[in-house]
Amino acid sequence: MPHSLSFIDAFHPIFYPRTLAVIGASADPTKFGNIILSAIQEIGFGGKIYPVNPDGGEIKGLKVFRSLAEIPGPVDFAVITIPASVLLSTLEECRQKGVKGVEILTSGFKETGTAEGRQLEGEISRFALGGMRVLGPNCFGIYCPESGLTILPGQNFSRETGPVGFLSQSGGLCADLGQIAKGLGIRFSKMVSYGNGCDVAACDLLEFFFADPKTGVIAGYVEGIDDGPRFLRLLRENRGKKPVILWKAGLTATGGRAVQSHTGSLGGSAAVWEGAFRQAGVIQVYSAEELIDAIYAFLYLPGGAGPRVAVMGGGGAISVAASDSLERLGLSVPYFSPAVLQKLKASFPPVGNSLRNPVDLGNPMIPPSMLRRVMEAAGEDGGIDTLIVIQILFYILYQVRHRVGMADQPLSRFSFQPELLKACQEIKARYGKPIILALPDITTDGQMIDLEIELRKERDIYQAAGFPVFSSLDRAARALSHVVRFRGMVS
Amino acid sequence: MPHSLSFIDAFHPIFYPRTLAVIGASADPTKFGNIILSAIQEIGFGGKIYPVNPDGGEIKGLKVFRSLAEIPGPVDFAVITIPASVLLSTLEECRQKGVKGVEILTSGFKETGTAEGRQLEGEISRFALGGMRVLGPNCFGIYCPESGLTILPGQNFSRETGPVGFLSQSGGLCADLGQIAKGLGIRFSKMVSYGNGCDVAACDLLEFFFADPKTGVIAGYVEGIDDGPRFLRLLRENRGKKPVILWKAGLTATGGRAVQSHTGSLGGSAAVWEGAFRQAGVIQVYSAEELIDAIYAFLYLPGGAGPRVAVMGGGGAISVAASDSLERLGLSVPYFSPAVLQKLKASFPPVGNSLRNPVDLGNPMIPPSMLRRVMEAAGEDGGIDTLIVIQILFYILYQVRHRVGMADQPLSRFSFQPELLKACQEIKARYGKPIILALPDITTDGQMIDLEIELRKERDIYQAAGFPVFSSLDRAARALSHVVRFRGMVS
Repeated sequence: MPHSLSFIDAFHPIFYPRTLAVIGASADPTKFGNIILSAIQEIGFGGKIYPVNPDGGEIKGLKVFRSLAEIPGPVDFAVITIPASVLLSTLEECRQKGVKGVEILTSGFKETGTAEGRQLEGEISRFALGGMRVLGPNCFGIYCPESGLTILPGQNFSRETGPVGFLSQSGGLCADLGQIAKGLGIRFSKMVSYGNGCDVAACDLLEFFFADPKTGVIAGYVEGIDDGPRFLRLLRENRGKKPVILWKAGLTATGGRAVQSHTGSLGGSAAVWEGAFRQAGVIQVYSAEELIDAIYAFLYLPGGAGPRVAVMGGGGAISVAASDSLERLGLSVPYFSPAVLQKLKASFPPVGNSLRNPVDLGNPMIPPSMLRRVMEAAGEDGGIDTLIVIQILFYILYQVRHRVGMADQPLSRFSFQPELLKACQEIKARYGKPIILALPDITTDGQMIDLEIELRKERDIYQAAGFPVFSSLDRAARALSHVVRFRGMVS
Repeated sequence: MPHSLSFIDAFHPIFYPRTLAVIGASADPTKFGNIILSAIQEIGFGGKIYPVNPDGGEIKGLKVFRSLAEIPGPVDFAVITIPASVLLSTLEECRQKGVKGVEILTSGFKETGTAEGRQLEGEISRFALGGMRVLGPNCFGIYCPESGLTILPGQNFSRETGPVGFLSQSGGLCADLGQIAKGLGIRFSKMVSYGNGCDVAACDLLEFFFADPKTGVIAGYVEGIDDGPRFLRLLRENRGKKPVILWKAGLTATGGRAVQSHTGSLGGSAAVWEGAFRQAGVIQVYSAEELIDAIYAFLYLPGGAGPRVAVMGGGGAISVAASDSLERLGLSVPYFSPAVLQKLKASFPPVGNSLRNPVDLGNPMIPPSMLRRVMEAAGEDGGIDTLIVIQILFYILYQVRHRVGMADQPLSRFSFQPELLKACQEIKARYGKPIILALPDITTDGQMIDLEIELRKERDIYQAAGFPVFSSLDRAARALSHVVRFRGMVS
């Protein structure tokens, strides 16, 4: 069933409201009603904000309205942070005011496990039948960089828009992801924390993201699904179109129990979900880290990333570990072709190197000019799809600086990054194969913070040039394997 | 078969040499012969160092001997970095000088896969038959903080001694581990990079570490085993005594191939090794990260850590994720007993919290005074063995500082650490249950480096007080599961 135009249209005032009421706005900086108001103000929301509180007055330079009815003109969207006990009358006021959508941050409903909580939540969802879309309760709201709407606490999320649509029953995960995303250059079209999901939930959001032209990659954290058959039908219809990365939590007995007291959902069996997801072409992940890495890989490896990988770096265990972990993930590290290997051998000393792939150049301080020859070989070789280059900055920067007795000089002076980036760009341009960098951090010593500073700087430069950077080879390989498996599905 | 005294005694001049020759010492800072000499000098080796090079002269303030024979008095141990072609004559000189042991850093032997390389390596190992122990070739040597001997490049390894005995076919992994260990407070009795292992290899080192009173926890990275039946017999004899953590690499087809060109070993089948390790009570790990986390857990959780875990923190997905990942690892997150839960409920508001375990206190900025009540409940509850406390410093420090409008103040001003540490200490003292901290880093933004600085500072303080700190709940749980499985074997 294709979505109706009105279904998609109904989301417009929610993601792009021109006027916004914060019901339960507060001057107390520990209250949700203050935190969410501040966040929306600070991120620079483009529309008009109306704080609402029966006490009136002024908060953060904005006039406070004593009731919704007092607000002049229409209100598109309302953020609600008032106690559960007065929620129904407030929703009735919203209905009368003609509000198009609300997000309810308040908790104390289905997730309490009480009959009272369940009943109250049922009554909330009835308001949705009248056409007003309801997000939550027990959620952190919506982040939409294009309009400047943000979640709790998302005041410092990026204002750049991007292709990722994210849906989550956990508000905490949204808050974490928005933060982590910043440094990784992951940008969102919309992020929706929908909590208990009494009206808008996984199915509607999936359907919206499939239709939304601004969303190219969909990711989500789900605990329970509002309508399993519809959910799977939607996913199957999308098969081979937009990538969908899902973390389905609560798949163990204990996890299922925790889900119930978190958002009042039902977890479901692992085998059933895994089978259904496989059929529907969903990329299933099992942790926040894996979720983030997969999103990142889909953004930075838009095409061409294949399963036959050349791994290159210095330090032997790296190459053995690479081989083991890539093979476990369904990728391969094939030998270079005899002709390519012959050429490579001619330009390296015969000892201390393993050139057949994985390529172990013996030590981590290999100058980019030498690494470039290996990259060229991997580019030329018809049996290789993807390159992974490992650089352990501790050795390249700290050890080299120490050896040449220049401990007073900044680490960046010893960096291979400018030359290596150039090599990456030329090889990628010439052979069209994606290049992934692994920059493992092998010290978390409090005294060596300058290495972490340099590492982030180099990562940002590679990223800005379109090369993904992972903090370990294992994470790079796992993320690549998700992209490869997805591409295999697209004919 | 118990080890003979002479077998163990033969290692003494290797780990604690009074006199040390560096054969192939060089003034060129890019050569191994310079790097290893500098490293041993800089770490502060306690014995006498004799550089040897036919050119003579002086390097780093030390007189260079033109040959081993020129050195006055006996030489206990020799570090050899000369080309493969002149190795045999040098070993003969060592034999004549009465050197007790040598480490050969040179590569170009069995790992080349050539008949010539294999033959040369066979001839090296014949010198060992005469009583001189040979480490390597193709290795990075020995690190022994007690004597001040160190590997290549280990000039800044810790001089503190500790209980971990580490054996590795990868020198690169030794170099990484020594570095990572510093910040984590992991200290070694001895670390041995044995490369191709033509004489001293996994079996001898295992037997030595079992007998060594200074070694309490044994860990290792092995590619091939010199004598499989002896190796497994040694492990079985140790069952229930010292924990042995092993990363057996090369268990996949590609990994096995990489092993061959790395140290010339044979990988072997995954199923066979996994079965044998299980029988022998070995803690098997599959990556450097898992290896390090397991060593760390054995050091910081010396007793009492059991499988029934109370997990506490703020943010809902944390609790669901905790439940899923702990159960997958064979741990459990049982409900608190009704009496304990009753007491707990009385001191928390009824809404926004999930108190049954995992305990989700609704938001990450929970003051330690509240968290302490949950810790007390977990301490009191007879059904709980181990506590995991999650603290997301980004929210506790950055968000709180932002809310109170004090962006110019240092992050540490907002820290819960002093109060939380006190709570950890009191609860641990009162109930005797281990407490693990998870301090996830949810930003790697270049601009927010002060958070990383504060994180390392807090980690160091918890660690110094004996509380292990992991960077994620998943890593904490995996490491705990290794300790729990091992303790289950000890009656």
